[in-house]
Amino acid sequence: MRLKHVKNADIIVNNSDYIIQNPEQYKGKFKELFLNNNPIHIEIGTGKGNFIINMAKLNPSINFIGIEKYDSVLVRAVQKLENEEIPNLKLIRYDANEIENIFSKEISLIYLNFSDPWPKERHEKRRLTSPNFLEKYHNIFKDNQRIVMKTDNRKLFEYSVMKFNENQFNIDELSLNLHDDDIKNNVETEYEEKFSKLGYPIYMINVHKD
Amino acid sequence: MRLKHVKNADIIVNNSDYIIQNPEQYKGKFKELFLNNNPIHIEIGTGKGNFIINMAKLNPSINFIGIEKYDSVLVRAVQKLENEEIPNLKLIRYDANEIENIFSKEISLIYLNFSDPWPKERHEKRRLTSPNFLEKYHNIFKDNQRIVMKTDNRKLFEYSVMKFNENQFNIDELSLNLHDDDIKNNVETEYEEKFSKLGYPIYMINVHKD
Repeated sequence: MRLKHVKNADIIVNNSDYIIQNPEQYKGKFKELFLNNNPIHIEIGTGKGNFIINMAKLNPSINFIGIEKYDSVLVRAVQKLENEEIPNLKLIRYDANEIENIFSKEISLIYLNFSDPWPKERHEKRRLTSPNFLEKYHNIFKDNQRIVMKTDNRKLFEYSVMKFNENQFNIDELSLNLHDDDIKNNVETEYEEKFSKLGYPIYMINVHKD
Repeated sequence: MRLKHVKNADIIVNNSDYIIQNPEQYKGKFKELFLNNNPIHIEIGTGKGNFIINMAKLNPSINFIGIEKYDSVLVRAVQKLENEEIPNLKLIRYDANEIENIFSKEISLIYLNFSDPWPKERHEKRRLTSPNFLEKYHNIFKDNQRIVMKTDNRKLFEYSVMKFNENQFNIDELSLNLHDDDIKNNVETEYEEKFSKLGYPIYMINVHKD
């Protein structure tokens, strides 16, 4: 994602009630933050927030947490939430690399939407579906592991399918052109809306491991 | 594939030295037919033969057998071979459903090129990557199982990736747009040449199971 400088982005982000400050304090006890035992779904790389905000509105009995590294993007999500009251939604500004610092055996599903493809071989470890990350996810999942991924990047998708296969995930859904399928309840990201309109195929995979 | 009536197709096919008559007699001993111990690769649904003929020419130390159900298509392959001498190539007119009648633990690789997608749910068992067929293949493979598939049919490809994954195959190669990749040694089928020129993506997967 292209990063634009947004004036006072850090201040705006820090002052939102949706943002969890010092999220490490809730590690292993996010249910106390939400005050219920509902499943927790997270999106890694939440960007401008369309997906996670709409998902939270559509699914009030699931708790959603969006994780995003950059203030300059997250500020857009925060701005969208200014006049919203969504009790099952929280946002965290954090580096996904350190995700094991904030969660412990409490996540039911991870969404990866239009993640950075990191095309260079030497950056493989940074891809969010690399064995490096699958290992981290393993430690934050509650019991069953479920990952739902969408991307328009063919190479990242091919890589991800192979890594899921290699790491004994079961493929429950697979689409090589999601917007041509008869799908219901697909919640779009900002990026997805733009690129599917341009005619690019959107790839989707839904995997789980018991 | 659209079937056209070809006059005397059965006679032309029956008179070709490339065609193995009564292939059941070689079950488990095809190496005796080829007079060597080279690996045997088969193509199920050989059609007009471009792929298997060119593969055999390019790889003289592998034995190739093309299997095709219909005389009216196979006759085109036979006609192409009229003035060719390719000792490592044979053709069989046979129904893939009965493949266990002609082979036994002697195949090293199966090619599935542009197979009939059988889109209707009730025809799933006829798809060449259905568990029904994977089970048959298991019985004809020598030791390791390897299947290489190409298709332009998205739904068949999605289905096949899921079935390979479900049946514990390892994905070694995967391309969602083969002709856009920097691939060497891709041998095209008649169908592939036509449809890739029209801009349709060609999907490819290469899987194995030890």
